[in-house]
Amino acid sequence: MIQMPPPDASVLAQRQAIVQALRDALPGAVIDDAAETRAYECDALSAYRCAPLAVVLPSTTEEVSRLMRLCHDLRVPVVPRGAGTSLAGGSMPTEDAVIIGLSRMTEVLEIAPGDRLIRVQAGRTNLSVSGAVDGLGFFYAPDPSSQLACAIGGNIAMNSGGAHCLKYGVTTNNLLGVTLVLMDGSVVELGGPMGEGSGLDLLGVVCGSEGQLGIVTEATLRILPKPAGARPVLIGFDSSETAGACVAAIIRAGIIPVAIEFMDSPCIRATEAHAGAGYPDCGALLIVEVEGTAAEIGEQLTLIRDIATRFDPIEFRESRSEDESRRIWLGRKSAFGAMGQMGDYICLDGTIPVTALPQVLAGIGRLSRDYGLSVANVFHAGDGNMHPLIIYDANKPGDLDRAEAFGADILRLCVQAGGCLTGEHGVGIEKRDLMSEQFAPADMEAQMRVKDAFDPDWLLNPAKVFPLEVSASRRERRLNRPADAA
Amino acid sequence: MIQMPPPDASVLAQRQAIVQALRDALPGAVIDDAAETRAYECDALSAYRCAPLAVVLPSTTEEVSRLMRLCHDLRVPVVPRGAGTSLAGGSMPTEDAVIIGLSRMTEVLEIAPGDRLIRVQAGRTNLSVSGAVDGLGFFYAPDPSSQLACAIGGNIAMNSGGAHCLKYGVTTNNLLGVTLVLMDGSVVELGGPMGEGSGLDLLGVVCGSEGQLGIVTEATLRILPKPAGARPVLIGFDSSETAGACVAAIIRAGIIPVAIEFMDSPCIRATEAHAGAGYPDCGALLIVEVEGTAAEIGEQLTLIRDIATRFDPIEFRESRSEDESRRIWLGRKSAFGAMGQMGDYICLDGTIPVTALPQVLAGIGRLSRDYGLSVANVFHAGDGNMHPLIIYDANKPGDLDRAEAFGADILRLCVQAGGCLTGEHGVGIEKRDLMSEQFAPADMEAQMRVKDAFDPDWLLNPAKVFPLEVSASRRERRLNRPADAA
Repeated sequence: MIQMPPPDASVLAQRQAIVQALRDALPGAVIDDAAETRAYECDALSAYRCAPLAVVLPSTTEEVSRLMRLCHDLRVPVVPRGAGTSLAGGSMPTEDAVIIGLSRMTEVLEIAPGDRLIRVQAGRTNLSVSGAVDGLGFFYAPDPSSQLACAIGGNIAMNSGGAHCLKYGVTTNNLLGVTLVLMDGSVVELGGPMGEGSGLDLLGVVCGSEGQLGIVTEATLRILPKPAGARPVLIGFDSSETAGACVAAIIRAGIIPVAIEFMDSPCIRATEAHAGAGYPDCGALLIVEVEGTAAEIGEQLTLIRDIATRFDPIEFRESRSEDESRRIWLGRKSAFGAMGQMGDYICLDGTIPVTALPQVLAGIGRLSRDYGLSVANVFHAGDGNMHPLIIYDANKPGDLDRAEAFGADILRLCVQAGGCLTGEHGVGIEKRDLMSEQFAPADMEAQMRVKDAFDPDWLLNPAKVFPLEVSASRRERRLNRPADAA
Repeated sequence: MIQMPPPDASVLAQRQAIVQALRDALPGAVIDDAAETRAYECDALSAYRCAPLAVVLPSTTEEVSRLMRLCHDLRVPVVPRGAGTSLAGGSMPTEDAVIIGLSRMTEVLEIAPGDRLIRVQAGRTNLSVSGAVDGLGFFYAPDPSSQLACAIGGNIAMNSGGAHCLKYGVTTNNLLGVTLVLMDGSVVELGGPMGEGSGLDLLGVVCGSEGQLGIVTEATLRILPKPAGARPVLIGFDSSETAGACVAAIIRAGIIPVAIEFMDSPCIRATEAHAGAGYPDCGALLIVEVEGTAAEIGEQLTLIRDIATRFDPIEFRESRSEDESRRIWLGRKSAFGAMGQMGDYICLDGTIPVTALPQVLAGIGRLSRDYGLSVANVFHAGDGNMHPLIIYDANKPGDLDRAEAFGADILRLCVQAGGCLTGEHGVGIEKRDLMSEQFAPADMEAQMRVKDAFDPDWLLNPAKVFPLEVSASRRERRLNRPADAA
């Protein structure tokens, strides 16, 4: 929790004036009561909290534009917020910022099954996008664990993935267009039914930009026909390294299952104690799901069985019914809840080439012993998107700091293996100071030039993504630039 | 052909000084003899030509960086060039520009089949990328018609597709990372083995940016395992509209063949006269290719036959052998050559939602009658990427102008149907003045802000992508900006 000194009288008056201007601009949509803004103090990275200046909940693109123009003219920072499920602090406010929340923007604007697309307001939840087209035989592919709650706008900001993204790709592969409101209130349309076709592909850079470039208010999304069928297998191994090597062999063979999920021994035990899914007590297990017609499923499972056999599996459990499929997935879907029972945890999402899995898993084990902190691994193995959970005790002084240092070392390990800091959670505040581990100064400079282009005063979602020192000095420099260079 | 007045003596001296500076920077790599630069006067949009100031052929990223810094300091525009196969004038020089050509940069830098990637220098041809991994059982998916000649760097600049991109996506879906040299000579690394993971996804905006942001010198590309087998079917229909409706029905059913190619009657006749592939004489035909194991191929073809039957096909010819497959593809692969025999042509590549195919095809037919110019349609129908070929006579005064006006009307039709100006050829010089048909001023302004960020003086690949008037005034404004705002 970041402790702030109480603001003095002139600051208070200034804050009240800003709130009044917001109320005038959008009556009935402004929250500034301390009791009510509490829900907006943090996102799912709840170790960090800060009360915002105010929260505004617009209902239309035009209202977002009006609010942005106002904040721009008043030089008030803006923090965009979908459903606040970010795991990296991506929607955490600063005390001088206005949160623009998308929770009232949940409409379906268009469904065109023939062109395989849906257009929605960006506050709509991920799962209810699939819900809107389910009866037509379609679904929206990206499926983050938080899909019941998380908003499409947040998915776009973080370029979210999910268990099934091995086959279907992450958000950027399923996004056709957005309506984007820039910091100065101007509204731009990027992409459309055909995606981004001519000129510069700004859609790609906006997806995953963590609210640094603008606020997405509407999105056109690719929908896919539901597969004829799907079947998971559970494969148990004696060690994490062996399971990792089997993943690499499956991918190398060119098989693309819908999902390859990985759980190691600490995770399996916690999950069994919590959900009792009947998993084998082994060093690590994989859940591999394939889909298609009966013939396609049969062929893929034969190939996977042949490969797995080479790694001496302890168990190869193929689902024979809906109920068995549900039980195979039950433990994996309960894993994060189960870990919560074990203690406080930090969840990372460094991503590595699949061939590096055995080596990085071994490295994480070594670090765990060095730091004296437990780690459990549960992740999307097929595309190398790791989710090590570091267990610590929030009530034990110094434990959080140690857990964070451990996390940073894991991410360094990922970068050294040719990977990156984040696969789907974003950099947020959590990993901003690690960006220089992945990017050379010229690389980061190129990113910040684009930020300059969209948000010259660095008012949007401040203090995130870029190292704090760098973004603070950049903002300072821009605010003090000569007027004629605006 | 753009006619230029002969340069006066001071301009000549200035040009000679620039050429000398280039020679000093990179001995043995500069071409400025008029006979030798002739090959660089145009690309595949050969109706437009202009001799460059000079051509330089570097061999390494460091050499490209040295040249870019020099041109930047001398304020000399730079035109990047892959193999010069662009169909939209994307690599056409201006008379004051230095061409930096990639033809010497053809090395394979790394092959990692386990991580399914290859890293190459950007001058390597598309087909020879697949060639480098063929023996390992892999291929590189994007396959533009020019794949024997075109360079990966050009593919990235135009975000090229190809007949098989319906299933595998276009370049941006198969690109993991690039080394990019900016106009000031700085070298940035975007993406890598895991694609672009943290911070802003600059890789996406660089792909398809038509050389406006920098020169790609090295690329990390996704390679895919070769499918077990593939089989095409040829389906003949009585009209273009019916064939278009059948494409929409296949896509709507959720089948994703590897390719759905479309040829109309004028194209079929020209192709038959040229290549004699044995195509039926009908209103339009589709070539649909599916791939996978024998069981997968069988299931998909059954579904496609069921759908096609609803549209009363004149013929449904399923390949039964390698030789029959070759013959089915023969006509399609000869189509562009065959059209060349019919006269001069302009090839467009507007892209539309597949449900709009029947309506847009009918509209093109009406325009063809209005303009009194023949049009032949041959294109990637599955993803709505049209390639209308407008036939004209270059020796007939006014015919090119009429053909261009006809082309512009077709592209307006595409944009009105929810599509865009270009699917894979780029905007180049050909469609720059049509950009305002697709983009509102705020949309185009957002694109140009990114251009400003990477190339503040607008020196890179000038007079392309953006409407000529807009980009000229933008460049002017930037060059005259106060020094402290640089």
